[in-house]
Amino acid sequence: VTDEARPLDRIEIVLVAPRNPLNIGAAARAMANFGFSRLSVVAPFEAHWREARSAVGAPQVLDHAHETPSLAEALAPSTLVFGTGTITRRQPEHPVVLLPDLGPLVREEIARGGRVALVFGPEKHGLTRDDLARCHRLLVIPTDDRQPSMNLGQAVAVCLYELAARLGETLQPASPAETPATQAEIERLAAVAGEVMEAAHYSPTAMHAANRHDLQLLLRRLNVSHTDGRRILGILRRILHRLRT
Amino acid sequence: VTDEARPLDRIEIVLVAPRNPLNIGAAARAMANFGFSRLSVVAPFEAHWREARSAVGAPQVLDHAHETPSLAEALAPSTLVFGTGTITRRQPEHPVVLLPDLGPLVREEIARGGRVALVFGPEKHGLTRDDLARCHRLLVIPTDDRQPSMNLGQAVAVCLYELAARLGETLQPASPAETPATQAEIERLAAVAGEVMEAAHYSPTAMHAANRHDLQLLLRRLNVSHTDGRRILGILRRILHRLRT
Repeated sequence: VTDEARPLDRIEIVLVAPRNPLNIGAAARAMANFGFSRLSVVAPFEAHWREARSAVGAPQVLDHAHETPSLAEALAPSTLVFGTGTITRRQPEHPVVLLPDLGPLVREEIARGGRVALVFGPEKHGLTRDDLARCHRLLVIPTDDRQPSMNLGQAVAVCLYELAARLGETLQPASPAETPATQAEIERLAAVAGEVMEAAHYSPTAMHAANRHDLQLLLRRLNVSHTDGRRILGILRRILHRLRT
Repeated sequence: VTDEARPLDRIEIVLVAPRNPLNIGAAARAMANFGFSRLSVVAPFEAHWREARSAVGAPQVLDHAHETPSLAEALAPSTLVFGTGTITRRQPEHPVVLLPDLGPLVREEIARGGRVALVFGPEKHGLTRDDLARCHRLLVIPTDDRQPSMNLGQAVAVCLYELAARLGETLQPASPAETPATQAEIERLAAVAGEVMEAAHYSPTAMHAANRHDLQLLLRRLNVSHTDGRRILGILRRILHRLRT
């Protein structure tokens, strides 16, 4: 269906638990408008998801969409993940990228042989803190302070316009010596690292959720390559084996 | 309500005969998101217009919107008008501006002391040829050939994002020696020039619609200043007086 040589086909658009069928349709239409082909939908409300797909004139991209129960599964093949959101009172846990600056970062990642994901949260509240723990960067659309929150279909359209306009079609993904680790590899690392910490009695109450959350953030700050990821995993497994015998 | 010193307040967003109340609401919301304040609605379908304005959470910008019966009236105070559309089989009658290149043109016009309008056509067919005869440039959002036509609310969002992002807040409109002619002044010129052509028996069937259409296009290609517009009008009136006596 997709052609890996096209940069836009190495970018996954991920909608987390979208509610409104009109918004799902609008997001898919914006993808078709700007030439994007890869859509994942995480834990959609089944009735609304069915309605969006069966709507008259529904964009074809909905037929090829991946449906996954968890965000981690949708992100498995990705190497660089942008979670969309607004800057709130709380200090963000991630490096913030403003949308007009997104193009060069995506271009570089694809040139390295990576795969990029843009993640959009549910209409009501956006991405949760746990969702964002699976993202490398917080992507912010610069909006007016008095009305910062955008409609989902419009937010998707604006992000894809910016990417398509600034990325161009000239970019050729190289076959790099050091491809970045995929999110599936990072999740595997996090799981084994978590086991190691537990086996080492790292936390008195054996790995609070907060520790797992921090671990997710930390692993994404490291910029782990595929090869290094395998090395670290080997080391962790060896440690785990020692701790348990 | 608006502050003429803010560049975004010198930009009028014009919706021609919008049909869908959701689209009207979405356009107004995008204006609020990106800090635009001036909305004109031309010949709206009354029931839908009422519905959009009375919707729960309707953006405030709808309360301050201008409602006009004709596009010419909505454009009266503007000096540079961009009509949005797609490039079709037909050779466009206007210079084409791609959206990523819009910022510098708008910046320059506002620095000259001008006022800019972005015009969006009805959902079904977009702007008519007569609507476009009131525009200086055809503004095109670069989209995929297989799905070029955008949803109205999304098209407005993408255009306003681009303008807000590239225009910044630093721009200060100067008080220029030569401010450009407003669209009201151009319309007055077109009317008097038309009368002159008729009085001079320019066309055997006394000014076909096609001649009036070409005249509108021509006057907008001239880049007439306010002062020159008055001069030309004085000359035309003199000629008309001579022709009629």
